Amino acid sequence: MEKNSLCETLQKVREVNPLVHNITNVVVTNFTANGLLALGASPVMAYAVEEVADMAQIANSVVLNIGTLNSQTVDSMILAGKAANESGVPVIFDPVGAGATRYRTETAQKIMNEVKVSIIRGNAAEMANVVGEKWEIKGVDAGDAKGNITELAITAAQKMNCVVVITGKEDVVTDGKTTYVVTNGHPILTKVTGTGCLLTSVIGAFVGVEKDFFRATVAALTYYGIAAEKAARIAADLGTGSFQIEFLNQLSLVSFEDINQYSSFREF
Amino acid sequence: MEKNSLCETLQKVREVNPLVHNITNVVVTNFTANGLLALGASPVMAYAVEEVADMAQIANSVVLNIGTLNSQTVDSMILAGKAANESGVPVIFDPVGAGATRYRTETAQKIMNEVKVSIIRGNAAEMANVVGEKWEIKGVDAGDAKGNITELAITAAQKMNCVVVITGKEDVVTDGKTTYVVTNGHPILTKVTGTGCLLTSVIGAFVGVEKDFFRATVAALTYYGIAAEKAARIAADLGTGSFQIEFLNQLSLVSFEDINQYSSFREF
Amino acid sequence: MEKNSLCETLQKVREVNPLVHNITNVVVTNFTANGLLALGASPVMAYAVEEVADMAQIANSVVLNIGTLNSQTVDSMILAGKAANESGVPVIFDPVGAGATRYRTETAQKIMNEVKVSIIRGNAAEMANVVGEKWEIKGVDAGDAKGNITELAITAAQKMNCVVVITGKEDVVTDGKTTYVVTNGHPILTKVTGTGCLLTSVIGAFVGVEKDFFRATVAALTYYGIAAEKAARIAADLGTGSFQIEFLNQLSLVSFEDINQYSSFREF
Repeated sequence: MEKNSLCETLQKVREVNPLVHNITNVVVTNFTANGLLALGASPVMAYAVEEVADMAQIANSVVLNIGTLNSQTVDSMILAGKAANESGVPVIFDPVGAGATRYRTETAQKIMNEVKVSIIRGNAAEMANVVGEKWEIKGVDAGDAKGNITELAITAAQKMNCVVVITGKEDVVTDGKTTYVVTNGHPILTKVTGTGCLLTSVIGAFVGVEKDFFRATVAALTYYGIAAEKAARIAADLGTGSFQIEFLNQLSLVSFEDINQYSSFREF
Repeated sequence: MEKNSLCETLQKVREVNPLVHNITNVVVTNFTANGLLALGASPVMAYAVEEVADMAQIANSVVLNIGTLNSQTVDSMILAGKAANESGVPVIFDPVGAGATRYRTETAQKIMNEVKVSIIRGNAAEMANVVGEKWEIKGVDAGDAKGNITELAITAAQKMNCVVVITGKEDVVTDGKTTYVVTNGHPILTKVTGTGCLLTSVIGAFVGVEKDFFRATVAALTYYGIAAEKAARIAADLGTGSFQIEFLNQLSLVSFEDINQYSSFREF
Repeated sequence: MEKNSLCETLQKVREVNPLVHNITNVVVTNFTANGLLALGASPVMAYAVEEVADMAQIANSVVLNIGTLNSQTVDSMILAGKAANESGVPVIFDPVGAGATRYRTETAQKIMNEVKVSIIRGNAAEMANVVGEKWEIKGVDAGDAKGNITELAITAAQKMNCVVVITGKEDVVTDGKTTYVVTNGHPILTKVTGTGCLLTSVIGAFVGVEKDFFRATVAALTYYGIAAEKAARIAADLGTGSFQIEFLNQLSLVSFEDINQYSSFREF
């Protein structure tokens, strides 16, 4: 993949300002909206069964996140997802905490069954639980990897017939045939809540402007990881509060030069 | 309007610490509460149908915001609004995203029909949709103005019989007879989520201590715009994350000298 | 109490990374999660009746906070609390705004009746309302103390048979027999929303790793107060926005040296 093509996708996001419809959890709404604004996207949060289909159909992408799910928001997610499917709007799914409780695992699987998801992003434990492989999970945080993550990702992509992103020390992106490993990012991201959720929404912004979902996802991951690296150089030593703010700054400041210089990925 | 009278209203807010009851969206709760605290107001968020009437009646003002509405919070908004009306507590309404979906437009109109709203604040697209004028909208963000905003505001104020605030590059305040244009503020506000919502709550704090709602609203707008200008001078170049934090700082630091020196408005 | 024993409890938190299950209000979710991560705990937010019992039983502690309660979350709190009780997981309760409305007072009392709470934390007005003593309240903020707070705390602890924490200018911790006054902290904490709620969750993290709840609570209060003092020295003059971020930084940076040097408490 050409680094220039990653720049082009970022440029499209900044020009189009894609409307990203998020049905996400109550912990990360503000951070997600500010992160998407910093990127140049246009976030909207809408949850009511009365309106989610309407909102999904005018959006450039729909992001479903079960971080603080309840029966009403699950209904809304499925309504929004189906409306998006009808209108050709890509759906990105974040199965937060799948495996931590039976309700989350079953809901994640239900969403995958009822909605055509274009991209699913989670950590290894979540992904394993969505596709029914064995893995450990503690709360909504992934444990250390205890299996072969790349194999898990490829299996998941083939089973679910979509682009699969497993994030961790390295990020794996695969459509079941082609697989990339993206090594941008910084460990301090795990100390700020919602950085995984925001990444899922950032992928939503990128696939909202680019029909090649695989390339758009790699572009989103490198962009996001580079912003984290730049922010960490400035603020990691100050603490997680300062890093969080500097990360929002850097999301608006990542340049094509940064991508050409710092993006780090390899084909598997 | 005398600049000194704007200072007096700000001083009253800081002395009275008005209790502002917010029924607002899940994206901006934290930012709204911190902004109101920085100003010197006392925020409370309460949503349950079992308690909103009680809370509204002990508040100095009630702010209704449909940013992430659902059928339950709409019921709560109407209960709180009616209770406030009975007790002479001013109600401020923010019709976030009116026009983006039919549900939002209809809900905004329902609230305006069932509750006596003292001040309504939105962007031009939202206001046009609430009063049934033609305008474009994309998600919950206003497009560029494509009509005469001042005329729209005056029409809206006359139709709805309340103070109307349309915010944008310049802010228009009108009660349908007198109209002011406030030119304080900074474009970076559009890159931080919830700055419109917080402004609505800040207006709530000002009208909670001052019976002249028109003057209180102009005072709120100049105060808010000056805080944004001061924050932008310090932090806009650093990015939207740093601006957001500096803006909270400045909300607590705007002085009477700042208002006398920087407030910028004209009668239309 | 030995200062070294406070350090030991903090060390345990950082080693164990206790899973703290929060059912909390929509204003403070993000701040609470980031504060717990900064401390070294592992936060999870889960609200659905379908999953709260499962989540509570795998957690190290369960925190119940009625800041933006509704009938569904109250049901979830009682389910989670009972599941925690069955599994020997400590429950920490924050009766936000008890006394402000009848619904809050009754709900707080209902939770205390149906769930075995190990630690309850609130301001004096809230605590008085939970145990049925006279006190003034305005919104969800405590007024100035108008009674003998230490006596109130001891009475409450004896009536409710749990550890009671009343926070204010000084913090009182009592199990009804032994009583400590912790004097760490800083007044600017009252200008940042959710600092009381986060403290309750931090207590949750400490009692999640330490069977002596009384000592764990004193450890949590000193740790938290010292972080606030350190943050205030760096950022209080800049404003409440900067303080909030620096406070998150300091929550990750408080060292054993800080605790040995700065912790300030006395037996009553």
